[in-house]
Amino acid sequence: MKPYRSRFRTHCMLVFSVLLAPALLAAPATVEQWGLYEVALKGPGDGNPFLDVRLTATFTDGERTHEVAGFYDGDGVYRVRFSPEAPGEWRYETKSNRWELTDKSGVFTVTSATGANHGPVRVFNTYHFAYADGAAFKPVGTTIYNWTDAPDAVQEETLRTLAAAPFNKVRMLLTPQPTAYREEYAPPRWPFVGTPPRDWDFTRFNPAFFQHLEKRVAQLRDLGIEADVILFNPYGRWGFETMDAATDERYLRYVVARLGAFRNIWWSLANEYDFLRTKTEADWDRLGALLQACDPHQRLRSIHNGRMIYDHRQPWVTHVSMQNGAAVEEPGRAEMYRGAWRKPVVYDEVKYEGSGPFRWGELSGGEMVHRYWCGTVAGTYVGHGDYFFTVREDAWTSFGGKMTGQSAPRIAFLRKILEESPPQGIDPIDQWQDPRIGGLPGHFYLVYFGREAPTAWTFELYRNALTDGMEFTVEVIDTWAMTITPVPGVFVTAKKDRYMFVDREGRAVPLPGKPYHALRIRHSGGAAPLPMVKAPIEP
Amino acid sequence: MKPYRSRFRTHCMLVFSVLLAPALLAAPATVEQWGLYEVALKGPGDGNPFLDVRLTATFTDGERTHEVAGFYDGDGVYRVRFSPEAPGEWRYETKSNRWELTDKSGVFTVTSATGANHGPVRVFNTYHFAYADGAAFKPVGTTIYNWTDAPDAVQEETLRTLAAAPFNKVRMLLTPQPTAYREEYAPPRWPFVGTPPRDWDFTRFNPAFFQHLEKRVAQLRDLGIEADVILFNPYGRWGFETMDAATDERYLRYVVARLGAFRNIWWSLANEYDFLRTKTEADWDRLGALLQACDPHQRLRSIHNGRMIYDHRQPWVTHVSMQNGAAVEEPGRAEMYRGAWRKPVVYDEVKYEGSGPFRWGELSGGEMVHRYWCGTVAGTYVGHGDYFFTVREDAWTSFGGKMTGQSAPRIAFLRKILEESPPQGIDPIDQWQDPRIGGLPGHFYLVYFGREAPTAWTFELYRNALTDGMEFTVEVIDTWAMTITPVPGVFVTAKKDRYMFVDREGRAVPLPGKPYHALRIRHSGGAAPLPMVKAPIEP
Repeated sequence: MKPYRSRFRTHCMLVFSVLLAPALLAAPATVEQWGLYEVALKGPGDGNPFLDVRLTATFTDGERTHEVAGFYDGDGVYRVRFSPEAPGEWRYETKSNRWELTDKSGVFTVTSATGANHGPVRVFNTYHFAYADGAAFKPVGTTIYNWTDAPDAVQEETLRTLAAAPFNKVRMLLTPQPTAYREEYAPPRWPFVGTPPRDWDFTRFNPAFFQHLEKRVAQLRDLGIEADVILFNPYGRWGFETMDAATDERYLRYVVARLGAFRNIWWSLANEYDFLRTKTEADWDRLGALLQACDPHQRLRSIHNGRMIYDHRQPWVTHVSMQNGAAVEEPGRAEMYRGAWRKPVVYDEVKYEGSGPFRWGELSGGEMVHRYWCGTVAGTYVGHGDYFFTVREDAWTSFGGKMTGQSAPRIAFLRKILEESPPQGIDPIDQWQDPRIGGLPGHFYLVYFGREAPTAWTFELYRNALTDGMEFTVEVIDTWAMTITPVPGVFVTAKKDRYMFVDREGRAVPLPGKPYHALRIRHSGGAAPLPMVKAPIEP
Repeated sequence: MKPYRSRFRTHCMLVFSVLLAPALLAAPATVEQWGLYEVALKGPGDGNPFLDVRLTATFTDGERTHEVAGFYDGDGVYRVRFSPEAPGEWRYETKSNRWELTDKSGVFTVTSATGANHGPVRVFNTYHFAYADGAAFKPVGTTIYNWTDAPDAVQEETLRTLAAAPFNKVRMLLTPQPTAYREEYAPPRWPFVGTPPRDWDFTRFNPAFFQHLEKRVAQLRDLGIEADVILFNPYGRWGFETMDAATDERYLRYVVARLGAFRNIWWSLANEYDFLRTKTEADWDRLGALLQACDPHQRLRSIHNGRMIYDHRQPWVTHVSMQNGAAVEEPGRAEMYRGAWRKPVVYDEVKYEGSGPFRWGELSGGEMVHRYWCGTVAGTYVGHGDYFFTVREDAWTSFGGKMTGQSAPRIAFLRKILEESPPQGIDPIDQWQDPRIGGLPGHFYLVYFGREAPTAWTFELYRNALTDGMEFTVEVIDTWAMTITPVPGVFVTAKKDRYMFVDREGRAVPLPGKPYHALRIRHSGGAAPLPMVKAPIEP
């Protein structure tokens, strides 16, 4: 029999539970692995819940434990969102400085992922990405800064365009950007309570704004698209770029609590961070470290530059999000930032395909595709933009809708080639020697000739993982016409000299003498590839 | 009248001074600013002075104070070396754990620098260098790894070659490198006491080795050449690459104490640091931080890579010392590492001019000169090597002597152009747009066409610092033939569009249709340059 004291405690807890039970609004019994599990609670709606109420929940399956911050969603409703990384039985328990919200607990079952749910994307193999279930993820991104603020019909059109487009990642601003378009059209939703253009109560978020954003993020997820959400931007006029440090931090924590459980979320701390003159680099270091510290889901994190490049070795940065169009004009440049930081390099902005009067928005479709290929063989990733300037500035990259340019189908063609390439990712084959060749030594090679127009390419590969008697098939790729033409026969390796292997009959691959062609070379038989030499083997 | 106690102290000190006076061997009454002032003391020669005896001296002119470590120079002689940065009266006082060496003090006068003494080189204007007296220093380096270990006659020949060569910086190893040459010739001096090849007493340095090295460093100084001394290297066989952490640190402190007061010293922590498999990156971080902490003269510090690039944002790194030949094949690449670390970038190894069987030593003279020019217009600096392979491997870059290649006179020609360029240094003019143009906006431009062979160049410059009506002279430079041909007349700026200025009559510069040509464009009159826009002015 339990001692009296314990029986009293049990009794009290029962009474409390009965008293407080109505607070639990919803907490489903099951959720899919990497799905979004949400505990909804009824709590105080008076005062300023954004400032006054603290709420967290601890989630555990016995092996893993996460403390997850909740958030106020208006109308006296509080939510805690969690995306479990493993199937099995999980439980949660809340803590709060309000009786109605604290000590709520529950149990739920996490079922295995189904369908296209591969989990969140992580850094993989130093320079690359993979889904949590191990499936390769090769970023093929586009930019649609303000699409969630466009008229609803345009947003729906954007989703239809994306469903048919090659992109698996979208860069999008969280707080809107002032544009010419916006002169005619003021968005109905703003992140803070108040009156546009600048009269905001920065202590009160506007749940409707975020609920809408979440709907769009979920729709991207269901299209298999990562949402690379930009938290700060320098395109000031609404005042979101001049908030004080405490407001910045509260904003960041609120966004993470709301959005972080969506498995397709990536955090981009800022766009063109160095153009935001109200913050120093120390501010970005602090906000980045906070982002790392306050996100129980550890989504991917980056910061995007204007002209000054951030110190991407900072531990909070998971991958490089680069603006530098010149860097992907040829693969020898594109490779260089990899070594500087030893992290994946995503050239998220390489200028846009477009017709604008600005130098950053006047790439031809061919040049956009060329930049994708340069980045690809260099072992990096490239992002797309489509900016055909009109009076209302309703370009894809500003507001979504339809794309105008010609690059997207060719990027789809490249994406298919990427998806057929090794899951380890493409790395430079002969570093600082022949930047045109990327791949996986001994297994897979892409050779991109760019603006060259060769009529033949002597079969010749760098020694790493090669030995005599390996057989390779070769295909000729027209990156613009989107054709893949097999070269008859197989090429069989023979050592040429200290560095290179050639075909044992000295064969060359005939080429059409036109620019923007590539080769795909795949191991097909004969001797097996040697183990890769990862470390340098020569001075 | 002084109290008794004080009189007693004075009396005792007098007695002590008389007793200990013989310890002071030398301490000159004057030294030139940035010269080498040395206090020599007689002390204990028994036991192991390298381990047992601690000696420092505090130097002050009342305004500045430096604590400087001394070192044991053999035969019971101890020295403290200091290079004063300001003229005036300075005093020193020693501290030691040995009576004979402690509390020695003296006064000396620092006179103004004379002749070619411009002081040590410092980082200047973010990406550039200057002497302490403000004179520009534009590094034009060469590599002679083992020259101080070559036969004496070769060393003397090396000095004669350098006296007639364009180089103002020499990269050289401190501990020797095993080479084929060394099979025939074992150097007479080794840094540690012991027996080659590997039987060393790492607790005892060999003063004769360092005395010889210092003589060579001083000779370089007198030729106006910076000595970029490489402290560790991976070319193991003697065991200097596998010393333990305590020995590494003692070695580093000893070298800094001996050499750091030479004003032409630069520290290169390691050559091809990542090929030194016995050390981790954390070891290099630690040794770099120690180098920064223990060097009262704060000489320039770098670390040179093989294939893995060091994190050059580390505070101890003053400038980037890069091995990457591909990076200077065109200026668009060369620029990229500047932004990654915002420090001066010196491409100390871009492969060598040579005839060797190795890919790192087979550049033509023309290619070496081309790489110098690419680096120059990109706002970086390039280093030379000359490696014409022979059976005995007595190439310039291994052992000095004579150079064989053809690039040196062309590098001399470029150096003269550099010395006539603005002291602020050359920076990219239109970042990530036209990498062929470097200079100082509104004042000075170098345009390098590389492998292009244009027959004309339309006068067109990026807007920064430009306004209408500025007059410029243009000269055509043949980088190989070493000719500078003025273009008749002046070019007068007129705004063309949002970004560019052209000549108001639309003039072009005629060019000979050959590769490796350049232009020098200098402001000569008309409207004055506008203030430079340092910050970005456009997205």
